[in-house]
Amino acid sequence: MRRSERKIERIINYRRVLIKLDREGQTNIFSHQLSALTNATPAQIRRDLMEMDTSGSPAHGYVIKELITSINHYIGVDHEHVAIIGLGNLGKAIINYVNGSSENLKIIAGFDIQEEKVDRVVAGCHSYHLKDFKKIADKEDINTAILTVPVRVAQDVAEEIVKAGISGILNYAPVNLHLPENVYVENRDMIAAVEKVAYFSDH
Amino acid sequence: MRRSERKIERIINYRRVLIKLDREGQTNIFSHQLSALTNATPAQIRRDLMEMDTSGSPAHGYVIKELITSINHYIGVDHEHVAIIGLGNLGKAIINYVNGSSENLKIIAGFDIQEEKVDRVVAGCHSYHLKDFKKIADKEDINTAILTVPVRVAQDVAEEIVKAGISGILNYAPVNLHLPENVYVENRDMIAAVEKVAYFSDH
Repeated sequence: MRRSERKIERIINYRRVLIKLDREGQTNIFSHQLSALTNATPAQIRRDLMEMDTSGSPAHGYVIKELITSINHYIGVDHEHVAIIGLGNLGKAIINYVNGSSENLKIIAGFDIQEEKVDRVVAGCHSYHLKDFKKIADKEDINTAILTVPVRVAQDVAEEIVKAGISGILNYAPVNLHLPENVYVENRDMIAAVEKVAYFSDH
Repeated sequence: MRRSERKIERIINYRRVLIKLDREGQTNIFSHQLSALTNATPAQIRRDLMEMDTSGSPAHGYVIKELITSINHYIGVDHEHVAIIGLGNLGKAIINYVNGSSENLKIIAGFDIQEEKVDRVVAGCHSYHLKDFKKIADKEDINTAILTVPVRVAQDVAEEIVKAGISGILNYAPVNLHLPENVYVENRDMIAAVEKVAYFSDH
């Protein structure tokens, strides 16, 4: 795991909470309040936020709108274009969920090899044949992909999209991908997740 | 995070890989071979497997079938009954995926508050009204639940199912749940996961 992964996870989480509070009309927040809404300690939060170009005041805490802007600047992920490969039930559910929930991110292109899944639109996401991946990824400036293909083809598909310029993969196929070191892969094996929770609910 | 979480994750991952190899007809494996198929080092694998009641031999490695049996015994999760609450697109996709992929786990009951989603069967999972949760959970001996409800109701629903005896929750709602300490919660915020991968694919 890269050194700052946990920190980036925490900061993304702070941003989600802050956006929600801002929508609800709250203007300021103290680190201990943000702590109660996340899994981080107040000290951890203050340390993480020290690197942003905004600072809290002892009397009023952080200004929420400023903090969101600072985090957006720090993370630098804004209107990111994402592709999804594999348009089965899970793929389609993820498109609906992400495109219906996020303002910063959009899954703009879906890919499959089955003709009946190609050339359609799901929740604002157009679908293409996988053979056109590189062309579309170049055109749409896509470097992040979600992989929801069957396990038997996951490694081949991953290699193909990496060759086409993808440098970050959220992998839902239950297999460890072997890819060049500069490619960031986050594995989300759903079965393993359920098995783990089932284990800890018994222990 | 509980002390042994990472270890349990690794062991669940070893089991998945071993089951696949067993199906493909492979009988033995060395720790360095298992290492190439997982993200763990050979030393880590040997350390993890030392607690199982089977051991590898220097000449032949581990016997795969024995190792699977030992892991099943160690983990103790067998034919686990799981519930899912929230039968939207994501909930239905998860039922199809889990019930179509896993032998050990089955999502046997789904719950929602919308009448048109109640009293149906999806991939072997019967659906009920949420008001019947405790009755069904008691009858079917369910203590693990997957939460795919809208964020605004997630905390209330979580409290309700915990009162009904749930002690492990896989939470797909993008909110930090506040629950008693004995309840194990694993958060799977999909938006945050995509944001994190997008960040690291740019950096």
